[in-house]
Amino acid sequence: MRPQDFTAISALMKELPGADEAAVAAVRRREGELTKPAGSLGRLEAVTEWLAAWQGIPPRVEAPAVVVFAANHGVAANGVSAYPVSVTAQMVANFEAGGAAINQLAALHDMALRVVPLRLEAPTADISRAAAMSEEECCEAFGIGMESVPEGADLLCLGEMGIGNTTAASALCAGLLDVGGEGDGFEARKREALSRDRMPHEEWVGPGTGVVEEALARKREAVARAVGLHGAAARESALEGLRRLGGREFAALAGAIVAARVGRIPVLLDGFAVCAAAAVLARMRGDALAHCMAAHRSAEPAHGRLLERLGMAPLLDLGMRLGEGSGAALAVGLARAAARLHAGMATFAEAQVAGKVEA
Amino acid sequence: MRPQDFTAISALMKELPGADEAAVAAVRRREGELTKPAGSLGRLEAVTEWLAAWQGIPPRVEAPAVVVFAANHGVAANGVSAYPVSVTAQMVANFEAGGAAINQLAALHDMALRVVPLRLEAPTADISRAAAMSEEECCEAFGIGMESVPEGADLLCLGEMGIGNTTAASALCAGLLDVGGEGDGFEARKREALSRDRMPHEEWVGPGTGVVEEALARKREAVARAVGLHGAAARESALEGLRRLGGREFAALAGAIVAARVGRIPVLLDGFAVCAAAAVLARMRGDALAHCMAAHRSAEPAHGRLLERLGMAPLLDLGMRLGEGSGAALAVGLARAAARLHAGMATFAEAQVAGKVEA
Repeated sequence: MRPQDFTAISALMKELPGADEAAVAAVRRREGELTKPAGSLGRLEAVTEWLAAWQGIPPRVEAPAVVVFAANHGVAANGVSAYPVSVTAQMVANFEAGGAAINQLAALHDMALRVVPLRLEAPTADISRAAAMSEEECCEAFGIGMESVPEGADLLCLGEMGIGNTTAASALCAGLLDVGGEGDGFEARKREALSRDRMPHEEWVGPGTGVVEEALARKREAVARAVGLHGAAARESALEGLRRLGGREFAALAGAIVAARVGRIPVLLDGFAVCAAAAVLARMRGDALAHCMAAHRSAEPAHGRLLERLGMAPLLDLGMRLGEGSGAALAVGLARAAARLHAGMATFAEAQVAGKVEA
Repeated sequence: MRPQDFTAISALMKELPGADEAAVAAVRRREGELTKPAGSLGRLEAVTEWLAAWQGIPPRVEAPAVVVFAANHGVAANGVSAYPVSVTAQMVANFEAGGAAINQLAALHDMALRVVPLRLEAPTADISRAAAMSEEECCEAFGIGMESVPEGADLLCLGEMGIGNTTAASALCAGLLDVGGEGDGFEARKREALSRDRMPHEEWVGPGTGVVEEALARKREAVARAVGLHGAAARESALEGLRRLGGREFAALAGAIVAARVGRIPVLLDGFAVCAAAAVLARMRGDALAHCMAAHRSAEPAHGRLLERLGMAPLLDLGMRLGEGSGAALAVGLARAAARLHAGMATFAEAQVAGKVEA
């Protein structure tokens, strides 16, 4: 089901299914009967409702899966990362050999792990000088993303690996969310940024894998040039933003999010790069991410800012900044606990426990 | 190894073992060699170091256990809870039948669950009128707590159940941490509290299982009377505070924390009541909780305040307020992930992944 062009993707986005409100109501009813004070499981109750909204009844985490998309970026040639470009392919090999962080987390949570390298030998064009991809390349990656969602998964974690991709994520956020975004408080953000002697786009730039000083300055400069070159087009069209400022893993992530929605699979978003890809869809349709939850807030400062703009509260806040879907995979444990509590707890009636007294 | 009196407990507290710094150093060394940017696992790396500090090498979560202490409180007769006192025993039966939240979480994480009811038929005295316990009763519960730590556990979660016990926890915190606590910024907190037309002790009082309006007013009043009656004694001696303002589960929790330290078992603290018991030990010895980590911040407002006073950053912040050790049991998943990542990931050398380039 690969889309041929942006028109096909836009058409797909008009057809997204909605939440199963009857399932949510049923979950809320049972939640009120379980042997605990009402609401005392906090966010876990919201997680259970969210699972049911997309899966229907019963909410469950029996077949979670994680998909990690890997790609290379022409912009890395500007010296914007702490690691050489060769690391992308080396880490893909590490994923395949079972030695990476995501392998341990996938095994711990009994999750299927799928690693999808996207033409690593052919990095996308340097976004500070040209558009990252043609429309055809972008749609191809989007389609691969759609096809990569494992059949039968009941919860999908999305992750990425790509040296240079926080530079692309920063440019994509600045392009999608700042340029011309007056309606979203851009002027106030601009004043705030300038009061700290920074340009607004710099608010989206952070250390990534750990760049400092000159490398960080080069990263800011590359993002500035990229936003200057492509910002107007990104403002006009989120898909143009994705094509010009993103990269193959961003397109694939967006495709996977859309395919999960069509398949009614709830999605745990990982860190900054994954959420930047998700922001493309949010720009196209206000409720495009209703089936997604932010697994965590990463240590990359722009990630917290982006989650706020997306109106998402993260489940975890552990200062992680690894990518690979690691934050999402960690949060699977919370989702599984939520589902298990809902399914396994006795009701007040079953356990013969007295209810609340009148105040 | 039941202590006969407070002198015996004080003597125990002088003999606590320290952290294994060599194990921590070994963990840090390996952490730096794993295939990820340095520090990119955030708090999970701190968790791994903390496990090693008490367990030695290798840090592991293979035999976690949860112990839940249950007790009844005379102060509940003042109508300070949303539930009748009979619920404590009914919930103990629910734990034993496998129907409570903690049963689901213990099963999910393959944890041993031990439920320890502490003379439920004989509630402690009403703290708003008398001391909760005699020294003998307090030491007995402390000793039962010490003996309840499962042999062979490598991680201990502590929880509680007791209708009325957030009233006791509030009074205990106010007694231990506010009265005469000028050195800890009491005057500033008092000014802040009074500026909001509240007494300082009221800062420690919250909804518990869900009390509002008149019941909440009764709870505040009971805490005020209890603090007025016992505050000076609690200021003089933390163990006197425990005896007068606490209850059997608080004494047992304190005993279990001490026994875990002696046995070099790291402890995940649960919510407000567990942390109030822990605060007794922190008042006796500055480093008494070095082997403890706060599993979560509960929705009970005083819990966040107490964690700040204890200098503890919680792992989770999900708005839970259930007790039973549920927050601690949920965090076991994070600790297990941390240990597994540390043990299972490949090093840069093993995976032939290139390291950081020079900036």
